[in-house]
Amino acid sequence: MNSIRTIFPALFLSLLFCGTAIAQELAWTEIENGIWKANVGEPEDISLLKAAEIHPQVGALNQLPAAVFPFIKDKIKTKMVDGKVYLQFPLSREEQIFGLGLNFKTVHQRGRIMRLHVDHYGGEDNGRTHAPVPFYVSSKGYGVLVDAARYITVYVGTGVRVDADDPPVVRDRNTDKDWSAQPYSDAVEILVPAKGTDIYVYGGSTPLEAVQRYNLYNGGGYLPPKWGLGFTQRVPTLYSQGDILKEAKDFEAHDFPLDFIGVEPGWQSMSYPCTFEWDKTRFPDPKRFIGDLSDMGVRSNLWMNPYVSPTGTLYPKLEGLTGSHTVWNGVVPDLMLQETRDILKDHFVQNHINIGVSGYKIDEVDGYDFWVWPDVATFPSGYSGEQMRQVYGLLIQNMTAKWFKERNQRTYGLVRASNGGASALPYVIYNDYYSHKDFITALVNSSFIGVLWTPEVRASKTAEEWLRRMQSVCFSPMAMLNAWADGTKPWSFPKVEAAVRDVANLRMQLLPYIYSTFSQYHFEGLPPFRAMNLVDGFTYDANVAEGELDSTDNPYKLAIKSEIKDQYMMGDNILVAPMFAGEKQRKVIIPKGKWFDFYNGEFVGENEVITITPGLDKIPLYVRDGGIIPMIPAQRQAPKNGEKSNLIIRYYGTKEGEFVLYDDDGVSFDFEKGQFSKVNILIKKDKKGILRGTIGSPAKGKPYGYNKKVTWEFMTKSTDKKQ
Amino acid sequence: MNSIRTIFPALFLSLLFCGTAIAQELAWTEIENGIWKANVGEPEDISLLKAAEIHPQVGALNQLPAAVFPFIKDKIKTKMVDGKVYLQFPLSREEQIFGLGLNFKTVHQRGRIMRLHVDHYGGEDNGRTHAPVPFYVSSKGYGVLVDAARYITVYVGTGVRVDADDPPVVRDRNTDKDWSAQPYSDAVEILVPAKGTDIYVYGGSTPLEAVQRYNLYNGGGYLPPKWGLGFTQRVPTLYSQGDILKEAKDFEAHDFPLDFIGVEPGWQSMSYPCTFEWDKTRFPDPKRFIGDLSDMGVRSNLWMNPYVSPTGTLYPKLEGLTGSHTVWNGVVPDLMLQETRDILKDHFVQNHINIGVSGYKIDEVDGYDFWVWPDVATFPSGYSGEQMRQVYGLLIQNMTAKWFKERNQRTYGLVRASNGGASALPYVIYNDYYSHKDFITALVNSSFIGVLWTPEVRASKTAEEWLRRMQSVCFSPMAMLNAWADGTKPWSFPKVEAAVRDVANLRMQLLPYIYSTFSQYHFEGLPPFRAMNLVDGFTYDANVAEGELDSTDNPYKLAIKSEIKDQYMMGDNILVAPMFAGEKQRKVIIPKGKWFDFYNGEFVGENEVITITPGLDKIPLYVRDGGIIPMIPAQRQAPKNGEKSNLIIRYYGTKEGEFVLYDDDGVSFDFEKGQFSKVNILIKKDKKGILRGTIGSPAKGKPYGYNKKVTWEFMTKSTDKKQ
Repeated sequence: MNSIRTIFPALFLSLLFCGTAIAQELAWTEIENGIWKANVGEPEDISLLKAAEIHPQVGALNQLPAAVFPFIKDKIKTKMVDGKVYLQFPLSREEQIFGLGLNFKTVHQRGRIMRLHVDHYGGEDNGRTHAPVPFYVSSKGYGVLVDAARYITVYVGTGVRVDADDPPVVRDRNTDKDWSAQPYSDAVEILVPAKGTDIYVYGGSTPLEAVQRYNLYNGGGYLPPKWGLGFTQRVPTLYSQGDILKEAKDFEAHDFPLDFIGVEPGWQSMSYPCTFEWDKTRFPDPKRFIGDLSDMGVRSNLWMNPYVSPTGTLYPKLEGLTGSHTVWNGVVPDLMLQETRDILKDHFVQNHINIGVSGYKIDEVDGYDFWVWPDVATFPSGYSGEQMRQVYGLLIQNMTAKWFKERNQRTYGLVRASNGGASALPYVIYNDYYSHKDFITALVNSSFIGVLWTPEVRASKTAEEWLRRMQSVCFSPMAMLNAWADGTKPWSFPKVEAAVRDVANLRMQLLPYIYSTFSQYHFEGLPPFRAMNLVDGFTYDANVAEGELDSTDNPYKLAIKSEIKDQYMMGDNILVAPMFAGEKQRKVIIPKGKWFDFYNGEFVGENEVITITPGLDKIPLYVRDGGIIPMIPAQRQAPKNGEKSNLIIRYYGTKEGEFVLYDDDGVSFDFEKGQFSKVNILIKKDKKGILRGTIGSPAKGKPYGYNKKVTWEFMTKSTDKKQ
Repeated sequence: MNSIRTIFPALFLSLLFCGTAIAQELAWTEIENGIWKANVGEPEDISLLKAAEIHPQVGALNQLPAAVFPFIKDKIKTKMVDGKVYLQFPLSREEQIFGLGLNFKTVHQRGRIMRLHVDHYGGEDNGRTHAPVPFYVSSKGYGVLVDAARYITVYVGTGVRVDADDPPVVRDRNTDKDWSAQPYSDAVEILVPAKGTDIYVYGGSTPLEAVQRYNLYNGGGYLPPKWGLGFTQRVPTLYSQGDILKEAKDFEAHDFPLDFIGVEPGWQSMSYPCTFEWDKTRFPDPKRFIGDLSDMGVRSNLWMNPYVSPTGTLYPKLEGLTGSHTVWNGVVPDLMLQETRDILKDHFVQNHINIGVSGYKIDEVDGYDFWVWPDVATFPSGYSGEQMRQVYGLLIQNMTAKWFKERNQRTYGLVRASNGGASALPYVIYNDYYSHKDFITALVNSSFIGVLWTPEVRASKTAEEWLRRMQSVCFSPMAMLNAWADGTKPWSFPKVEAAVRDVANLRMQLLPYIYSTFSQYHFEGLPPFRAMNLVDGFTYDANVAEGELDSTDNPYKLAIKSEIKDQYMMGDNILVAPMFAGEKQRKVIIPKGKWFDFYNGEFVGENEVITITPGLDKIPLYVRDGGIIPMIPAQRQAPKNGEKSNLIIRYYGTKEGEFVLYDDDGVSFDFEKGQFSKVNILIKKDKKGILRGTIGSPAKGKPYGYNKKVTWEFMTKSTDKKQ
């Protein structure tokens, strides 16, 4: 054996390699209350937050409690390795990690390797998804964002370093039954294939608070127009303007809610690639068509993808402003260039928005690889195919959002690709994957990463599946039936037509609650649809011993260990436990505190796992003790600007309660200038200990949108009644 | 709309980006007869061919016909994009592409996107596989190698460039039924994430000739020792030396062939991580154990993976010479450092090879990602985790191969990871995937990329499956039963024991043919097991009209369009058409010229698709017209050095034929110094037109290994008999 080591020459050699293993100390700056930023190497001049053009909500951030930096700073390590950025964050034994993209099958990300890459979801949680957001939230109450428009790899407690602080036990596979193929790892390790990146740490006392900071720093969640929260139907692709008007009338005839209608590719004179021009045969008079819809109170949303057909008028205008590769023979506009955006804006505003189009569905900006531009593609702005892939969804959301914002008009649409920094963008993500269960898991996961997701309904094999899917979608950010391919209607399954209408009407009745919930997203950064892991009582408890975790008496502890991916919160008060076709029964994890059945107010449980057999006609919903649910009578369309509704206030349980009812004009951005109302609804015990409801004096603004008359519904019978 | 373009500033900006879109002209040099090399950017100082340490067979290359450069040179384009190498090679309409790694499901690679990455095969042909060789062969008769130790992405006719020479037709998806989601592409585009790379083009008049050049440039195919081509059994993991000796005796008792035995992890005092030291309980006297086996004529092969246990004696010696991350708690030796290799050599030679160990099975150097070092890992040599992942299999093959070569001793072993340049390395690839059909497709694909593959047998649910798998593996580079987990024996299914023995004996009888076939691999670069697409008559025909391709009368043309992945050639003369459990019948594509049944010599077809119902006891084998198959009588072990065998020469068909029978000592590298024989076996028509066999005067060397007495078997009855 050689006794003299060649280690010194080897080290010297390694310094010659470009960027190999050069360690860097991080300088963390608290840029906002509880948010720290540092950079490694030379961050690129495009990033996710830059593409999303975020505008931090500084005031709201300052209202959050102060936070301490969640790591021992020198335990975060970084170096340049092989010309790329290496990052290492500590991970403790009892810590769980959430986020890292819109995942469809898993909620717990510890132990996974995520290659974050904008793509169509391929059936596996490996980082390739519509919103591969490089942000993770720890059960310990902090978040980390790597703000790079690159294919980032995150090893979430998988790699084991020789220099681990908390190394695993060495075992002999020959004889030791406890040998494991994946020994314990004490770190999150990240590879960013770029010369530098910004990184952000979001503090918090809970995971939810870290998520709030993430959303508020991104500008706060988007507040949809009221009509955006009503029901929407997308029509078959080759429907003419006459067909669509008839469709809207059919909704009237069936007394089914309809706030906006989605017009699929056939509105264009050519699609895949697109002209973005109305087809003269199917749409001879688009302005009149949009006007006729509008007269029925129905908004319109136009399908598009961004690939420009050589047969359209936009094509010659974009010469020199598109990428090296085509997608379905369409050129790809380079959205990093102001000139490109200006040309598109001229066309879209003039031909669509000026005649009343209310929004877009932006398709196929995600992938998959065989369709979109390859990584070898180049763009005139100089950005790479990889960078463009990671930000294109953000760029097109931001560009189109501005077209509406400049008119002081809210929009609400659909998009297939998003990424970090998207909280304030007016789009809901959707895809073609169509697994009902996994759609719900995506809804759960969307809450960690500042995006919205709709478990849209398309078709169903059975009436049961149809109803179960319609029930779920009514408890999501967009209640949408997408019938582009097969023309199904809400009433296509007569056996369950009544129950489908019931749940659609229930969504309409809940609009005051839902709208207030979205206002929390905007003003406080609270996700409107929320994973149970973000709910108080499901958070990290360092004192929990492992042996105790399996008990059904102890669901919070169980919750730490097992994924909760089939139930979620809508706002602060309503727990949603969707049912899936073929299943008559399910388990629901009921959090701490007493919980009550939404429909009859009865007590259902407290800090336990219950098994329910709810029947077909209702989606199981539970309300926390003291929960107040403001509602309106069922109506086919969301309240218009100036319309006043009667308020019905439901109350559940036995505790005192409080709810902030938010309202504004529902259509403009005047709320950003203070034109909104916040009214405190209070349930208090009087001197005799009897619960009574009062509308407090407005916390903010004069009350919008509600008549003075209020109906109080004390749902839980054992309590005392009424004001 | 803006009329003044910002295109000039945009272009200027793009020049500021490091490496963005800087085109480079390629300077092609013909470095050997029909092989051209060029480089792009600054090639890295590790590459696949460098890791494999190739030694081109210049003499053999010079004996191939001259070739013309297969492209119009300026149609090959390259530039630096985003700090990476971009390559573009033309692709014509009727061209098919083969290779690009050890694929298990597909043979045709056109239309695929391959991300070449050393990994356990995951069930999808996406570039992640045990040998993701960045070499492709065109049906037009040329090959391209990108010699970079990087995760290379190859878009094989998928991306469509705006500047395409042969652009697809623009269609409207709304109304045109011929619209396609994947429009026609006229190029192979490649992204190499490195500052530079060497590229090679291999010319040829056929795809096979291009493959020959690839293999010869790599040093020619490895010629296994004769014992390596006999039967091998791997024993259960915790077998003791006594158990293994008993196993060898059981083979004798069952009169079943056995040339070498594989010893699994339990030989080590600790495995996963490994000590590479004999376990004193199970192997109290390793030297005697190896000696006892040797006395029975049985060689030994030791399992290993390279991850070094802290409990072993090697560990302290390797301090400072291992990677930043552990694998199963073992450190990863940095094989780029000579000192590391020296330390390992000392240990392995002293403790294993000096006492008679004949080879290794090198496990788990492929992946998967959760087990091996992550891409963020660093190594003292300065090479990155990515580079090490791509070459580790080559490095460890080359290192261990040299230990044996320095002793003038041939070895033959197993490895889980390989890559470009591996032709001359003494290892056969295997894995855990275990789909019989896909194993055969891998065998087909191995022939394009200079690697060997064994469809090893482990277990089976039924006797039928057992027999079918045993039949296939006997027609592969390594006839192996791998019983590490469950201890099956060749005779474990009594119902088919006789048929299993028959096919094992048939392999032993065929050794002269197989050994000569491997000599072609070494001396001429011809793959011993060969895809039908490499066989004359299956090659590209530019004049074929599309409409004609489906006819069963026209199998070559059909062959261009449909993948042939379940039949292959063993050497020049034997077509193997394996049967799979549950299938009683199959189709076989019979090439041009008359073909004959191996077992009875009967004519079976000519240029057509036949359907066969072969029964359980035999694997369908066909011999071409004029095919000569030299054999020996069945024996349990391959002929030892100095042993003389009786030669049996089978002849099929009606044409005159010729075969070059190769032989040498079977164990040493003396053949490289000319110590071998090549004897011409001729079947010629005499003056009366009657076929007669003669052994011609030796073309090279004095005849090795055969007695003078030769038995001639004219298998096809209609022809005249005998010498």
